[in-house]
Amino acid sequence: MYVDNSATSPLNPQVLDAMIPYLKEEYGNASTLYFLGIKAKRALQKARHQVAQLINAEDDEIIFTSGGTESDNTAIKSIVLKQLKHKTPENPKNHIITTQIEHPAVLNTCKFLEEYGYEITYLPVDKDGLINLKQLENAINEQTILITIMHSNNEIGTIQPTKQIGEIAHKYNIPFHSDAVQSVGKIPVDVKEQNIDILSLSAHKINGPKGIGALYVKKGLTLPPLIHGGGQENSKRSGTENIPAIVGLGKAAEIAHENLEKTMKHNQQIRDALIEKITTQIPDSYINGSLKHRLPNNVHIRFSGIEGESLILKLAQKGVYAATGSACSTHNLQGSHVLAALQIKPALSHGSLRLSIGPENRLEDVDYIVDAIVETVEYLREISPLWDNKTNTYIGDKFEQPVINSTH
Amino acid sequence: MYVDNSATSPLNPQVLDAMIPYLKEEYGNASTLYFLGIKAKRALQKARHQVAQLINAEDDEIIFTSGGTESDNTAIKSIVLKQLKHKTPENPKNHIITTQIEHPAVLNTCKFLEEYGYEITYLPVDKDGLINLKQLENAINEQTILITIMHSNNEIGTIQPTKQIGEIAHKYNIPFHSDAVQSVGKIPVDVKEQNIDILSLSAHKINGPKGIGALYVKKGLTLPPLIHGGGQENSKRSGTENIPAIVGLGKAAEIAHENLEKTMKHNQQIRDALIEKITTQIPDSYINGSLKHRLPNNVHIRFSGIEGESLILKLAQKGVYAATGSACSTHNLQGSHVLAALQIKPALSHGSLRLSIGPENRLEDVDYIVDAIVETVEYLREISPLWDNKTNTYIGDKFEQPVINSTH
Repeated sequence: MYVDNSATSPLNPQVLDAMIPYLKEEYGNASTLYFLGIKAKRALQKARHQVAQLINAEDDEIIFTSGGTESDNTAIKSIVLKQLKHKTPENPKNHIITTQIEHPAVLNTCKFLEEYGYEITYLPVDKDGLINLKQLENAINEQTILITIMHSNNEIGTIQPTKQIGEIAHKYNIPFHSDAVQSVGKIPVDVKEQNIDILSLSAHKINGPKGIGALYVKKGLTLPPLIHGGGQENSKRSGTENIPAIVGLGKAAEIAHENLEKTMKHNQQIRDALIEKITTQIPDSYINGSLKHRLPNNVHIRFSGIEGESLILKLAQKGVYAATGSACSTHNLQGSHVLAALQIKPALSHGSLRLSIGPENRLEDVDYIVDAIVETVEYLREISPLWDNKTNTYIGDKFEQPVINSTH
Repeated sequence: MYVDNSATSPLNPQVLDAMIPYLKEEYGNASTLYFLGIKAKRALQKARHQVAQLINAEDDEIIFTSGGTESDNTAIKSIVLKQLKHKTPENPKNHIITTQIEHPAVLNTCKFLEEYGYEITYLPVDKDGLINLKQLENAINEQTILITIMHSNNEIGTIQPTKQIGEIAHKYNIPFHSDAVQSVGKIPVDVKEQNIDILSLSAHKINGPKGIGALYVKKGLTLPPLIHGGGQENSKRSGTENIPAIVGLGKAAEIAHENLEKTMKHNQQIRDALIEKITTQIPDSYINGSLKHRLPNNVHIRFSGIEGESLILKLAQKGVYAATGSACSTHNLQGSHVLAALQIKPALSHGSLRLSIGPENRLEDVDYIVDAIVETVEYLREISPLWDNKTNTYIGDKFEQPVINSTH
């Protein structure tokens, strides 16, 4: 049972069917003049419309990219490049506001910009994983060129108040970018209603192909491209158009759009059943992040006394494929920056599990998944030095290092 | 008959077969811990080896990108970003050497950098389309941070002396990047022997999938990434790995490597037959660019008195799919910058045709293609005001505007 759809999701067979002709006989370059090129160009237009529909944008506000990460990089770096021309020592125009819990595509782009003299405000979040709007407004200054705050979090699934963030941004004439990779297709994303100026999305999180994504840029906001070349995508992103993948993203967007209500209900039903059963059956288990402002397909739960990596590997042996923290951070062994921002102690955050639900999951699979988790957590606690099997309680606190220079 | 393989090439069915499992059941994110992720990771390693073999590189010198355009952008902008930290008014480190005939991915990246104060030397080429090595060496100065010169030209197929360019670059400790998108799989490309430090390649020009390419970066040369994020590709290019496309590029590279000798012979036989028959049967037809230093799969020929776009459309009606100039420049209506650099007058360069040969073309198809071209050129000349049908000669010269302030 695959419950790791936020890492990547299987390609919908309908999406693959739509792609296949473009992987076979319709291989034309959309820039060529003859029929193969014309067919490719039409496919491109159709997909652009399908993606625009999903987020309530105009067709010509959609730029195809190689994925969510490129979209995030383009959003931030294009704003920087645009402002760079107006930069003076008195008016450095070098401040960006983001949060502590962004996806690495945003966070590491911001850290990179710090090396070049940019000032970044990383807004904290409360214990529910939500930013404070007053803090956001207070962080704005004369040099602020961009507010980039994710639509929903890739680890804990908490949804930020984009509409209000956009209102504040626009009050100060600052563009608002939102990484909506995890939200699109899962909850309503409406760029107009939610006051979003620039938005990133990705195909492979909504049962579309890997290697393709899109960037929405509101009409009137002209940004220099991140990738220059032959002038494709209306000179906003060059490179031969990846027609099979673009067609796939278009089809996945269409399906996501048509099924949004149904998908939300399906996901929430499974999510709520998982949360209820797991927290009831396993003592000392806690949901990370807000329950109320949360993606319907996200369960993120911590179990004291155990180690997430062992949990994942044991669960995989039982045929349950899930994630600890987020897949994107398994390249380094540091704890989750998201859980750290939620003020969860490292020893506890390491015992976290993410289950992310997709259309292939069934309500009748919940019991199997829950049983597998209960058995595995019990087994891991049995062998854990941080768990007292006699009293069935967590005893990790007494192993903690004394905190030096603490203000507590 | 498709003779536009330099624009894009059909996916080899063997390549698609290799990709299909990763488009279906093997959909794992290479960063996840369980078996799906491990399988994806193994596929990634295999493809990296296949690509490295094709250009005589080490596996860990290969970075997967979304295509040739991203590779070119990464090469140039990463060098710029690296040097930016050492920039001072006295030592601006702001000079790049390239040529007038680069692909737009290089040319427009350089033009973009000019907007930010970078100095670019665009080396001219001779009438054969080749740079002058003495001119290259003379162009180098204390501020030169990069030499970027294409391996072979995407329009006229002329091959630059990369080995000697690399020698000059290294004499002055300057990194040498080469866009080898059109060379790889068509002629031997050996980064060690040809003294190349950074090299761009693309899958869809060698019967691999669109949306995937690679950047070779010589060991020891550390460059900041263009796209930041989750740390994939050894932190050199972030974004969830596009495993199906990477597997496709790997397979296409393996096939190209195994068949290089055969492919070169196949292409050259067809190329030479096309050139011989066309130039014999059509008066006032000329090959653009060197015949000697030329890709075996490239025919680029101009016919005075006609217009390339009409030629392409008429040929398409006869089932012959070719290009005028290069597909990448059909986004604008300006004449080819490559033919302009060869000092070919606009009126004549507009009558150019590119035939680019692929594995599906057959020697026995040559006569059909040639007949179609002969008939079409004759028809277009009949209705052309620039052609005298009585004397069968070009009379366009007398329509030319007098040149004002000319030094001729």
